[in-house]
Amino acid sequence: MFQVRTDLAVEARELYSEGENREVPGVEVKIEEEKYYTITRVKILDKIGEKNMGKPTGTYITIEVPNLKNPNEDLKDEISIQLAKEIKAIAKNTKKTKTLIVGLGNWNVTPDALGPKVVKRVLVTRHFFVSYKKEDDEEMANVSALSPGVMGLTGIETGEIIKGVVEKTNPDLVIAIDALASRNMNRISTTIQISDTGINPGSGVGNKRQGLNSEYLGVPVISIGIPTVVDAATMVNDTIDLIIDSMMKEAKFGSEFYEMLVELSKEEKYSLIREVLEPFMPNTIVTPKEIDELIDNLSIVIANGLNIALHPGIDLKDVNRYIK
Amino acid sequence: MFQVRTDLAVEARELYSEGENREVPGVEVKIEEEKYYTITRVKILDKIGEKNMGKPTGTYITIEVPNLKNPNEDLKDEISIQLAKEIKAIAKNTKKTKTLIVGLGNWNVTPDALGPKVVKRVLVTRHFFVSYKKEDDEEMANVSALSPGVMGLTGIETGEIIKGVVEKTNPDLVIAIDALASRNMNRISTTIQISDTGINPGSGVGNKRQGLNSEYLGVPVISIGIPTVVDAATMVNDTIDLIIDSMMKEAKFGSEFYEMLVELSKEEKYSLIREVLEPFMPNTIVTPKEIDELIDNLSIVIANGLNIALHPGIDLKDVNRYIK
Amino acid sequence: MFQVRTDLAVEARELYSEGENREVPGVEVKIEEEKYYTITRVKILDKIGEKNMGKPTGTYITIEVPNLKNPNEDLKDEISIQLAKEIKAIAKNTKKTKTLIVGLGNWNVTPDALGPKVVKRVLVTRHFFVSYKKEDDEEMANVSALSPGVMGLTGIETGEIIKGVVEKTNPDLVIAIDALASRNMNRISTTIQISDTGINPGSGVGNKRQGLNSEYLGVPVISIGIPTVVDAATMVNDTIDLIIDSMMKEAKFGSEFYEMLVELSKEEKYSLIREVLEPFMPNTIVTPKEIDELIDNLSIVIANGLNIALHPGIDLKDVNRYIK
Amino acid sequence: MFQVRTDLAVEARELYSEGENREVPGVEVKIEEEKYYTITRVKILDKIGEKNMGKPTGTYITIEVPNLKNPNEDLKDEISIQLAKEIKAIAKNTKKTKTLIVGLGNWNVTPDALGPKVVKRVLVTRHFFVSYKKEDDEEMANVSALSPGVMGLTGIETGEIIKGVVEKTNPDLVIAIDALASRNMNRISTTIQISDTGINPGSGVGNKRQGLNSEYLGVPVISIGIPTVVDAATMVNDTIDLIIDSMMKEAKFGSEFYEMLVELSKEEKYSLIREVLEPFMPNTIVTPKEIDELIDNLSIVIANGLNIALHPGIDLKDVNRYIK
Repeated sequence: MFQVRTDLAVEARELYSEGENREVPGVEVKIEEEKYYTITRVKILDKIGEKNMGKPTGTYITIEVPNLKNPNEDLKDEISIQLAKEIKAIAKNTKKTKTLIVGLGNWNVTPDALGPKVVKRVLVTRHFFVSYKKEDDEEMANVSALSPGVMGLTGIETGEIIKGVVEKTNPDLVIAIDALASRNMNRISTTIQISDTGINPGSGVGNKRQGLNSEYLGVPVISIGIPTVVDAATMVNDTIDLIIDSMMKEAKFGSEFYEMLVELSKEEKYSLIREVLEPFMPNTIVTPKEIDELIDNLSIVIANGLNIALHPGIDLKDVNRYIK
Repeated sequence: MFQVRTDLAVEARELYSEGENREVPGVEVKIEEEKYYTITRVKILDKIGEKNMGKPTGTYITIEVPNLKNPNEDLKDEISIQLAKEIKAIAKNTKKTKTLIVGLGNWNVTPDALGPKVVKRVLVTRHFFVSYKKEDDEEMANVSALSPGVMGLTGIETGEIIKGVVEKTNPDLVIAIDALASRNMNRISTTIQISDTGINPGSGVGNKRQGLNSEYLGVPVISIGIPTVVDAATMVNDTIDLIIDSMMKEAKFGSEFYEMLVELSKEEKYSLIREVLEPFMPNTIVTPKEIDELIDNLSIVIANGLNIALHPGIDLKDVNRYIK
Repeated sequence: MFQVRTDLAVEARELYSEGENREVPGVEVKIEEEKYYTITRVKILDKIGEKNMGKPTGTYITIEVPNLKNPNEDLKDEISIQLAKEIKAIAKNTKKTKTLIVGLGNWNVTPDALGPKVVKRVLVTRHFFVSYKKEDDEEMANVSALSPGVMGLTGIETGEIIKGVVEKTNPDLVIAIDALASRNMNRISTTIQISDTGINPGSGVGNKRQGLNSEYLGVPVISIGIPTVVDAATMVNDTIDLIIDSMMKEAKFGSEFYEMLVELSKEEKYSLIREVLEPFMPNTIVTPKEIDELIDNLSIVIANGLNIALHPGIDLKDVNRYIK
Repeated sequence: MFQVRTDLAVEARELYSEGENREVPGVEVKIEEEKYYTITRVKILDKIGEKNMGKPTGTYITIEVPNLKNPNEDLKDEISIQLAKEIKAIAKNTKKTKTLIVGLGNWNVTPDALGPKVVKRVLVTRHFFVSYKKEDDEEMANVSALSPGVMGLTGIETGEIIKGVVEKTNPDLVIAIDALASRNMNRISTTIQISDTGINPGSGVGNKRQGLNSEYLGVPVISIGIPTVVDAATMVNDTIDLIIDSMMKEAKFGSEFYEMLVELSKEEKYSLIREVLEPFMPNTIVTPKEIDELIDNLSIVIANGLNIALHPGIDLKDVNRYIK
């Protein structure tokens, strides 16, 4: 089946269900509504779910926070705490867990720099455990962090760098942070996805050919992602749909055009747009003007969430003391 | 008449001429083809030209360099020299001319940072002239440079800062560098526009309400601009046109749809797109992924062009010695 | 009288009083000890005080916070509030006061970038007052902010840029932020000086020839400064003194050497060091390794202090909501 | 024997030879004087040489270029070419050699950022060889590059990251770039040291505990270093020596002081200074004010040198085309 590309399980689900009034087969969904945010828990249960969603079996938790685009400090703190809860629940980490945080993406490309910015801000402690030959501590857990860059900067597949470091440092858990592509401008910088399936080829803003998952790295891999760009073809596609909706309401055209559209399937339309756009705008990104500031804010929310989730002695009261 | 917004005179001309096989009334155009670039000299002659083009009377020179997206050093040097020639011709500066270079735009927003990056790289000398109480010099001209920021950063209209500085330092000439919006993804970072009309309200990537022109500042104002973003609505609009072209060729629809499109005028279509896009993507920019690197390259080309144009003692051979 | 250069009134006082057990004539001093900081209020009362201190008549308030080098969030908040109180007391601003914040220094030189970093972080509002044609507001005051750069970057004397902008925008108050030089490594990034005398020639990390004071700008000028570097000659000088102290205690030498040192006056020693150092290390700075991080922290403390002091509707509870 | 710490073999040699008019035993030295630079080739031949120099057996080439502080383009090109020659001679690389370039140091601390800045600028190609499954090429060699950060940023010993990546990617050669500490302000940013001994514990601006050498990594390791800071204690020490020289010439003191100084050995003096300085200025660096600009320039010189040395198809004419 044709799959419009999206990194978000909630969007894969929307795409499937469009026009079909039932849940995706092989997928379980729970939705929790809070005052300022909505949590959607998508479980892909089996091969049928994998096929329908275009994503591997596992859990995908989405926290959607419309005001995260322009948050006040209280909201940022609330989301960090909620994120910490979800990370803990999915990672099942204890104070003995050794975690390697990996910031994926290219720090020179603003909307791709989310991962490296989070890595810059989390509290790293592994070197103290090594120096003092400690196994665990009441306050802090053993955390290391790395931004491996992208292949264009290093000449090395990102996965190879991570695997090399994992083999040398033997963490129990890898948490990978990545900027995602969304189908919908409204999700840019407002949606956080946490998953226990790691990072899989073709996801993220850039191109990663080797997956970063437990199969490859040999330890559990949690991924945390936030959409920061919309694909140009997607944007045009969605706009055309909106225009057609708008035109239909105004009855600006008759039956022939309607039939043409029905005839032209969703896949054909998207392919046509890609084909038309590609030659004159390869590597184009669609992103909010203030993306630099948004990424800075989001990296603080995620880094705080990670600090609370990983270190037993850090809670909301003092989480901001540890942010860099 | 309805005007699709563009900062480039060559695009305003294309928009006017579309479907009409004649030159824009009130406008004079000369085109010069070189191996690696094309120079278009547009002169808006009178009120009729102003109305047709949506731009004030004056000269607009465009250097289009398709390979400027991925230039080698020789091409960059060649374009710097050509740019220097055009600046000299339009500015009529001598070694006695005191020039203030103004870098417009927001240094925190990558595609808007062209002006500030150029200012960072040009050779400034005014302080030596002041210190040694010299009026002129065989090697260097009196040059100062300023990046005033944008209103969201300072709370002050950019024009007011420039005017305050002009009144204190009395330059003979102001050259303003700005990032522009284009209608066409192909022009991003490949087209340089030089004009003697200064910067006028509503142009550039950000919004400037006060024009920076000779009327306001009291001295001649040359503007140099390079498109770095495409407006999202424009991109959708152009893509739809391409799709329709493509569909028509394949005869995928009949006469009714064609009639609908003919009925739906260009203005209506663009307005419809803006209306549909606005609520869900305000402040969206469409830009190449590698815009950071492109802006760096372009700022060197422009800064070199300015250094050669302004200082009598700098020529191609040593221009790279003065770049910062 | 010979004056060892220092930007801090507390250090000028120490230098004067050294060896003399009495207050500096023409100067009034009050000291307030708090748990985490000490406030010293120095008033230079008259010409005699000016001569003895090498600084103009006026008030110099110093907040010394030894832990500001490695602060937790509570301490940063506490110091921001205290700073806000001092600014309010010295500036006598109301909600109608229009303030221009000026960030002095070179953003390319890390220890000189304090002023520009503060400007980047304060809340600017003037453009809203202009747009809505408001004179005042219950929540916000009219604040603009500018980092004019340094002469080597612009070719323009910093004072000229500020004066030009003051004449165009007519603020009631200018607050200038600057990085200072201290005599003492311990004061680096732990001491904040607030003064109503503005910035005077020769102070700060770089060289400013034109003072930024009420006489020149025509409105009151408050300066806020934090030492970020120690002069190399000063450091050598102080180290030699420490060595001599240490040697004397250990009686490593006899009367002749002691006599030589007594003979060699303080001025002669310092001049000798400068003379010896100058040829082989012009423009050398002595600064902590982690100065980048220190400056970031300090700029938040000052920007928060300014936001609380200037805007009637911002208090501690929500100050962090406005920091950028 | 007491060793004042220096990363430069030429300085270790000076320290040894001071007062002794003969070459260091176990060390061979050749000096080559050119118009704009001097090359010193130090070979530590055996255990005796190691002990006397405080450095492992191997070759240490130093290119001293006094004008590199303020270079024109011709000088930069000349030094890049000379550097390329030395790298080739010491690395014995061919077009088949797979090289991993490692940029050591902390990118957040300006004078420690040399390595990461070089890595940012070199041409990386390994991913093309992997994609096209090529073993070699007439124009390009297989080059990858990585900046591993420092332990305070990652929690991981730098050597472990490099070793992990070496094991995954199997280069034939590692070239490590590092910022060094010098004893002498004049050497800051004017001296390039190339060595075949790799990086050894305790060298560089930061602290690296694990050496990066062929023994640890299993492949030859070339190191390239440039001094960017002077140790504060060293600076004071050297200044005191200069002062004493100056005083002696002016006969400002008699025999007793002279005797005291003779009695106080070099080691004692340096230890005394360290002791006195430590409590009030830990982690202090002494560096030129314009260090940001110097590091930028130097990183271009080194990256150009590496590009010429490693890729068969890059020569002086087009080296600037490949710099980023």
